[in-house]
Amino acid sequence: MEMRPFGRLTPVETARRRLLAAARPLRRTELLSVEFAFDRVAAASIRAPFPVPTFARTTWDGYALRSADTRGARRTSPSTLRVVGEVFAEQAFPGRVGPGEAVAIATGGAIPRGADAVVIFEEVDIDGREVRVKRPVKAGERIDRPGHDFPRGEILVHEGEELTATALGTIAACGVPKVSVYAQPTVAILPNGNELLAPGSRPGPGRIFESNNATLSAVVRAAGGLPRPEPPLPDDPDRIERALRVALETADVVLATGGSSVGERDHLPRILPRLGTLLFHGIAVRAGKPTLAVRAGSKLVVGLPGHPTSCLVNMYWLVIPALRKIAHRPGPGWTEGWAVLGSDAVAPTPGLATVVPLRFERGRAYTTYRGSSVITSLAGATAFAMLPPGRRVVRAGERIRVYHLDPPLGPVIRDAVA
Amino acid sequence: MEMRPFGRLTPVETARRRLLAAARPLRRTELLSVEFAFDRVAAASIRAPFPVPTFARTTWDGYALRSADTRGARRTSPSTLRVVGEVFAEQAFPGRVGPGEAVAIATGGAIPRGADAVVIFEEVDIDGREVRVKRPVKAGERIDRPGHDFPRGEILVHEGEELTATALGTIAACGVPKVSVYAQPTVAILPNGNELLAPGSRPGPGRIFESNNATLSAVVRAAGGLPRPEPPLPDDPDRIERALRVALETADVVLATGGSSVGERDHLPRILPRLGTLLFHGIAVRAGKPTLAVRAGSKLVVGLPGHPTSCLVNMYWLVIPALRKIAHRPGPGWTEGWAVLGSDAVAPTPGLATVVPLRFERGRAYTTYRGSSVITSLAGATAFAMLPPGRRVVRAGERIRVYHLDPPLGPVIRDAVA
Repeated sequence: MEMRPFGRLTPVETARRRLLAAARPLRRTELLSVEFAFDRVAAASIRAPFPVPTFARTTWDGYALRSADTRGARRTSPSTLRVVGEVFAEQAFPGRVGPGEAVAIATGGAIPRGADAVVIFEEVDIDGREVRVKRPVKAGERIDRPGHDFPRGEILVHEGEELTATALGTIAACGVPKVSVYAQPTVAILPNGNELLAPGSRPGPGRIFESNNATLSAVVRAAGGLPRPEPPLPDDPDRIERALRVALETADVVLATGGSSVGERDHLPRILPRLGTLLFHGIAVRAGKPTLAVRAGSKLVVGLPGHPTSCLVNMYWLVIPALRKIAHRPGPGWTEGWAVLGSDAVAPTPGLATVVPLRFERGRAYTTYRGSSVITSLAGATAFAMLPPGRRVVRAGERIRVYHLDPPLGPVIRDAVA
Repeated sequence: MEMRPFGRLTPVETARRRLLAAARPLRRTELLSVEFAFDRVAAASIRAPFPVPTFARTTWDGYALRSADTRGARRTSPSTLRVVGEVFAEQAFPGRVGPGEAVAIATGGAIPRGADAVVIFEEVDIDGREVRVKRPVKAGERIDRPGHDFPRGEILVHEGEELTATALGTIAACGVPKVSVYAQPTVAILPNGNELLAPGSRPGPGRIFESNNATLSAVVRAAGGLPRPEPPLPDDPDRIERALRVALETADVVLATGGSSVGERDHLPRILPRLGTLLFHGIAVRAGKPTLAVRAGSKLVVGLPGHPTSCLVNMYWLVIPALRKIAHRPGPGWTEGWAVLGSDAVAPTPGLATVVPLRFERGRAYTTYRGSSVITSLAGATAFAMLPPGRRVVRAGERIRVYHLDPPLGPVIRDAVA
């Protein structure tokens, strides 16, 4: 059983920065209807082609009138106006409001020519075709001028902005039917290893079910990418290389899981450098040392460890920040904070930084780690800590830097269901 | 211009509770591959059909041996074992490890019969087909027993749980290929009003672009529903009723926007009670008084105000909690908290509860409200307050109850781009 030792291990933060620097934001775009662009990233700034509203309007039910006609009006000596027509929201009043005249107007109606103010129904006395206004109405009262909501030419959405409900409503409100958004990066996932069984198979000694496709697909989706999970490949270097080359042609990012260490069955360290420029192989971290990455043109190929926890933890720490950059998403996919440890179960390996998955209980953080091969090492974890190399034990009660995952790996609130 | 006054207004909290009580969680399910079930809701609990691992294995590279053979081993008098074979991850060792024998074993390999411990490469001296073990190895050392990750029969996912990356990884790790999830509720959106222009049309006096389709589609998606926006309908009661009845047959929730007040063009208050049981019409809130809802069998029909801000605010406060219940999602779609007001711009209407959209700046909350017809009233808002009726002014510096929206209406961090 041949083993080649790792060369000098790359510090985990160096590896993260190298991968991030090598990531190229996608330039491919898609044109989507505003109704279907939620949570996508605008590929161009959008300026208002019209002011909104496009016309002077009222947002009340009442009477449009000439304010001069109400000068000096009082409860005891009201101004009496003749109602000469009515305006519903969609209509332009065909005539002009003359002296002594008023036009009934509904919410959203365009102010008729001649009128310069609106008085609401509740403030007048109505008597057949006449209304009595009992106070002076100011010019402009109850009227929204064109551009009151926003003027023509205003930037409604900036390039790179994630499209929220109100951003999309604002675009729609000035009649823009479609919005150009950045394409979502496609991420091919190629598990490899003779021991891997596809879901649904019968297990046997030495054979394990492939599960990295499921976890990686989920976090790719959460980071704004489109996962393309593929069936497990056997430990055949030619087949693996062929599959990686096909994936590189059709996907923006290629992830291979397993076969990334230094054993004789670990083919990725020989194959990946033939696909591009090696960024690192072997990182000074527990769990997840056997990780490597190359830049191939504008694309990235990452070999992740096969162990479920090592794989997912490195995906979060190394790959997701790069993938978010490719997808034009802000931030690394986590939020930094501080937490107090609830127990001192943590004993890092000398010389390696240590990833500690954490769950929170009554405001304190507890490790969920049970070993790198154990998927339940991450059950309930909503954050992780990255302890620097050389540190040995962190005691209960100590304050440590933590990274809250968004979305969390596990449920924030566990059901109490038995 | 005929107006029928509202009857007694329903308090906003009563309206919210009535709609929530009338909502029926969907029973329809879908069967999805684990790779494509992220963020969906499990429709049934899933128990592990196998223990994981299914066999005793090691997670190290080393030698499987009989611990009894190393009893009394020391650096100065090591136990010498004969290497009789090797085990890669996917293989079962065909023979049995006898006394004085060892088998080379790779990470993930099944422990051969006869062996009861593993010693790692780094701890032995290797000399051709012999290894020298320099300390006693304990029975069980470096071995994960079957079920170490989780035992057979363990509940991996509970009915009603939102499927995270690790939940899906855990399911996949025991070979379950597909997961039953609740269907996403379909939500038909029917804007109505003669004044509404479809996006892309030319504007004119009195005509406004329909924008509620864009905002409601976004928040429906965020709540786990599938929006089905439809083109604007004119103020024709027969066409509106026909469209609502068709929508009711094919969607789980029907939203109509506009035409929900008491004017002669407001047809929804006459149509909706013919479709089901009226839950309320007219709620004691500013903005958004003209809102009504009926229960039609197991479905809901809600008439929302046409004004963009009134529409979206009532969608959040009244409809989203009900929609999340239908979609089996936990919580109302917001998180309660406290905030200190940064300015006292807020002056609620007597007799009506007041919705105040809020943005945060240096830890203080500021209203973004500029009127119910103004879509930019919600720009940058990430939370809202619901001030009780009767309250008149809230001063800067006062602490108020707020509801943080998830996801926020506007961007949390505004770009500084000019």
